[in-house]
Amino acid sequence: MIESGSFEPVPGIRLGSAAAGIKYRDRDDLVVIELAEGSTCAGVFTRNAFCAAPVTVAKEHLGATMPRYLLINSGNANAGTGSDGLRAAREACKSLAAARGCAINQVLPFSTGVIGEPLPVDRIAVAVPDALSSLTEQGWERAAKAIMTTDTVPKLSSRQIQLGGKTVTVTGIAKGSGMIRPDMATMLAYVASDALVDRHLLQQCLEMAVRPSFNSITVDGDTSTNDACILVASGVSGCSPITDAESPEFVRFCAAVEAVCMDLARAIVLDGEGATKLVELRIEGAASESEARDVGYTIAHSPLVKTALFASDPNWGRILAAVGRAGIADLEIERVRIWLNDVVIVRDGGRSDDYTEAAGQRVMAGSEITIRVDLGRGQADTRLLTCDLSYDYVKINAEYRT
Amino acid sequence: MIESGSFEPVPGIRLGSAAAGIKYRDRDDLVVIELAEGSTCAGVFTRNAFCAAPVTVAKEHLGATMPRYLLINSGNANAGTGSDGLRAAREACKSLAAARGCAINQVLPFSTGVIGEPLPVDRIAVAVPDALSSLTEQGWERAAKAIMTTDTVPKLSSRQIQLGGKTVTVTGIAKGSGMIRPDMATMLAYVASDALVDRHLLQQCLEMAVRPSFNSITVDGDTSTNDACILVASGVSGCSPITDAESPEFVRFCAAVEAVCMDLARAIVLDGEGATKLVELRIEGAASESEARDVGYTIAHSPLVKTALFASDPNWGRILAAVGRAGIADLEIERVRIWLNDVVIVRDGGRSDDYTEAAGQRVMAGSEITIRVDLGRGQADTRLLTCDLSYDYVKINAEYRT
Repeated sequence: MIESGSFEPVPGIRLGSAAAGIKYRDRDDLVVIELAEGSTCAGVFTRNAFCAAPVTVAKEHLGATMPRYLLINSGNANAGTGSDGLRAAREACKSLAAARGCAINQVLPFSTGVIGEPLPVDRIAVAVPDALSSLTEQGWERAAKAIMTTDTVPKLSSRQIQLGGKTVTVTGIAKGSGMIRPDMATMLAYVASDALVDRHLLQQCLEMAVRPSFNSITVDGDTSTNDACILVASGVSGCSPITDAESPEFVRFCAAVEAVCMDLARAIVLDGEGATKLVELRIEGAASESEARDVGYTIAHSPLVKTALFASDPNWGRILAAVGRAGIADLEIERVRIWLNDVVIVRDGGRSDDYTEAAGQRVMAGSEITIRVDLGRGQADTRLLTCDLSYDYVKINAEYRT
Repeated sequence: MIESGSFEPVPGIRLGSAAAGIKYRDRDDLVVIELAEGSTCAGVFTRNAFCAAPVTVAKEHLGATMPRYLLINSGNANAGTGSDGLRAAREACKSLAAARGCAINQVLPFSTGVIGEPLPVDRIAVAVPDALSSLTEQGWERAAKAIMTTDTVPKLSSRQIQLGGKTVTVTGIAKGSGMIRPDMATMLAYVASDALVDRHLLQQCLEMAVRPSFNSITVDGDTSTNDACILVASGVSGCSPITDAESPEFVRFCAAVEAVCMDLARAIVLDGEGATKLVELRIEGAASESEARDVGYTIAHSPLVKTALFASDPNWGRILAAVGRAGIADLEIERVRIWLNDVVIVRDGGRSDDYTEAAGQRVMAGSEITIRVDLGRGQADTRLLTCDLSYDYVKINAEYRT
């Protein structure tokens, strides 16, 4: 990931931020992203049944027409707010549409923050002109900061590729730190490019990119009500249109989008609430990918594994216990092997003969740890990213809101 | 539950404890329970695929003959120990069998403690005579203390019933505080009676009793490798044999066993690692019991719900988000209602109109809280018990073992 501040702007995409005073004082909490006319746009959204009002409205608007504006607020999720919440999300879109002379459904609304409080639309409406007056292609970093809630750092990533002799940029921002177990997308992520891409291919590209990135991370297993990830292609780079899923241009474009999504997903886990360790889970030798993911998430969500990671304690028995309760009915434990980085800890149904506590301790002392499990059942595998569970996770979540 | 110290002894059941120095110093960590000749015995065990060596051996022995002795150690789980662990469990049984002149498979072994360390069988063998010399019908409380690991209080419960003019006692002990999400039974629980009960009926009675008790509690979602629950009927009360599943005597006996199991299960959650609140989840109006349990466990395992409970924060949006991600594909959120005790918080897809923060705050300030969810889908329901997630949970599990 390129360092914060060294992002590449995307021709055709302007971002503006403002302070609406929704929950926070003395900081931006409202963002407008303007998409050049002719941009295509793709989106994936949370599958939480209690999805937030802006998610419902954004899906509805995206299904009806191509958007010109994204309107994002932090500090209030507008979730669990029933029909009042839907009205509020539409009102927010209306205030922006009126100021720019576009249709209401050309604005996609997004919210992140506390669940269950009424959205103060009036404050948003007052701040929209401020956000519009600050629109600039240089606005990515300021926007990345404005959408933060319990995040401690803004999250940006850029890639540049050559398509038909033209330089094309892919840049994205994301926020997310707790309530992270994306199921379709993550808390909020916006990725834009100046490539010219057919809208159906753009959707396909996004769905492929979120699978190994946002949909393979977890902080606490709590799938949010507000997850959304948006991919925009402004087309203003002057590159030829991408309309063929088999073309090398589409493949290269997809690789760049996936790379940006992977950077942002990793940044979210690194900034997981209270996190002190970044943990990669590699589950191999599974009979199916779904089985591999079940095992991976069982380890990733185990409070006992997570607290052992926090303590840098190679308490591998907790990993073994998590594998054992992951729901594989006919697991042959003699075939299971488990590694901490490259140290074999479990083999033949128990502790590996050559394992030493000192070797385990060396791995656990690091800030990045790989837990690898070979189930000895087949060829399927998966990779997930997670973090540890610390005092600060409890502190942040016991004190947030009140 | 009767107070610790006021248990009723069970004629025909003697308990002895001793200090074997397995892990702890200056405390008992070995228990022998002697069952009168002619006792029947039933057991349920963990379904964790990595089940501990003593679980494998206990199941094998229980399938072969009726046990005369239960041999329990704390401080070492003898789990994840492969074929060496199985040998060690059998050696431990052998040392007791040799001392009492019974068959090895008339001894059931149980272990609880750290996973993955070799069991020091020699120390157990040395301490077995001490434990045998202390055998007494009054030994319940001392045994309840000897099997503790991170538990802070011993857990005992008694009931007495009249069967055919005779007073029959049911008394049980349990241990468990972390790695608690029993799947068949709980960490370790031993319940005994002086009723005379057919062994098949005894097994049926135990399976019915663990369902609403040990199999309906969770502290951290981590199903242990060592869960076991044993029910013994010594028959020495002089009551008529219970051989008919339809008889009023069997029904009354089952009710007493279930009551003791419920007491012990509740005591485990109350003593959950770092727990400050006891939380009952009542999930109603589900299309099936399995659906009700999915929703209940999703709430019970949500770190965000658990930290809000710790903070006494009526952050009901987190409960709503957990219901929404519980995997019910066709959930109609407008039909879902959620209560904190008797305060309606969610109705018609959002916050109930008459909900006030003050009312929610009053409920959350208590040390016992009921979260009730009506899914509006059918007639199935379930009840689960859980606790909150506090700094002390992290502390205990980051510091345990090292």
